[in-house]
Amino acid sequence: MKEKTVVILSGGMDSTTVAYKAKNAGFDIVALHFNYGQRTQNKELQSFYAICDDLNIQNRYVIDLDFFKQIGSALVDKNMKIPTNGLEEGIPATYVPFRNGIFLSIATAIAEKEGAKSLMIGVVEEDSSGYPDCRENFIKSMQEAINLGTKDDTHIQIITPLIHLKKEDIVKEAIKEGVKLELTWSCYQNEDKACGVCDSCRLRLKGFEKAGLIDPINYKR
Amino acid sequence: MKEKTVVILSGGMDSTTVAYKAKNAGFDIVALHFNYGQRTQNKELQSFYAICDDLNIQNRYVIDLDFFKQIGSALVDKNMKIPTNGLEEGIPATYVPFRNGIFLSIATAIAEKEGAKSLMIGVVEEDSSGYPDCRENFIKSMQEAINLGTKDDTHIQIITPLIHLKKEDIVKEAIKEGVKLELTWSCYQNEDKACGVCDSCRLRLKGFEKAGLIDPINYKR
Repeated sequence: MKEKTVVILSGGMDSTTVAYKAKNAGFDIVALHFNYGQRTQNKELQSFYAICDDLNIQNRYVIDLDFFKQIGSALVDKNMKIPTNGLEEGIPATYVPFRNGIFLSIATAIAEKEGAKSLMIGVVEEDSSGYPDCRENFIKSMQEAINLGTKDDTHIQIITPLIHLKKEDIVKEAIKEGVKLELTWSCYQNEDKACGVCDSCRLRLKGFEKAGLIDPINYKR
Repeated sequence: MKEKTVVILSGGMDSTTVAYKAKNAGFDIVALHFNYGQRTQNKELQSFYAICDDLNIQNRYVIDLDFFKQIGSALVDKNMKIPTNGLEEGIPATYVPFRNGIFLSIATAIAEKEGAKSLMIGVVEEDSSGYPDCRENFIKSMQEAINLGTKDDTHIQIITPLIHLKKEDIVKEAIKEGVKLELTWSCYQNEDKACGVCDSCRLRLKGFEKAGLIDPINYKR
């Protein structure tokens, strides 16, 4: 029997690469997606379904977290502007407080229910635009907390296959794993054509450029 | 200026005692309540509001977590029976996987937004009916993870004033702090008169009995 894993799958390039890696490594995938009122929620959900279809993943959880609107971030608050002038030092306006902590906690509950032995998340430490909840020491610490706060016979490993990669390496990894990159979505602000100028688009485009490859999705400019 | 704290307030006896303690100690309270599809959701929310009113807490968050229905537990799944035959060894059917992990993660996001330096939660290790996410080692570990996964200038302490108390001591503590016990609700299954036989009612009633006091709420039997 294949080993079950819960993959947190936003539909972006990073989490999608993780899902393909898990599939290619023979895992039985439980795919987990969050709607949290982010601007590109519909587009991301559409990507999530298309990727699950392509990977033949039947076991899907789509979790609505409307409360993020009560917490705020440029990602969910349309009164705030998404930064488009290039990456800056420090924590950006798109930071959603403890988002990965919340995601991993919910993934833990699902893993315990499903009998999965691991959670996979596509966090990237170096290219993480300054989000503290993408750092490896946080992930390790969270794994410890998770195993103390669940049943004694639950043992969950948090697997972060991309954490030490640069964006260009993720692009190469995606190609190697056969990821259908045209199904993925990374832009923070648009749902039709990617803006090309938000931090997420900039990182993605730079990754393709450095990898010497062309991004198959459509950009506005 | 008073120091801000986020109090997770279900409206039960334990969390309410924590809220009164925080108030009496001079904290500026941000009250946080979760609707997660638990059977007594309406009654608990009503208790939450009444307690906030009594303590003059204006800063209230009511967070809807409908997804717990997708995870399951006798607390949220009406096809499962709430155990009423007395406390048994092991993890009960009312266990909701990693519930306090999820609650603390969301409380962290709110604390970071509000600039609160602590979270308070009414977990009780000994009388916790076998829930692993009520243990002190979990709480300590979660605090570490939280501080690694938030901004560098965010420092959050998880305060658990009741963790080593027995239920009878909590009853005495509640009286000492002036808690309006008639506003609280602990029963897992009823919203009109407490059943008296679920684990939560049994623990509460035993606590009053051992403390030599009468519980002011109405019981069915």
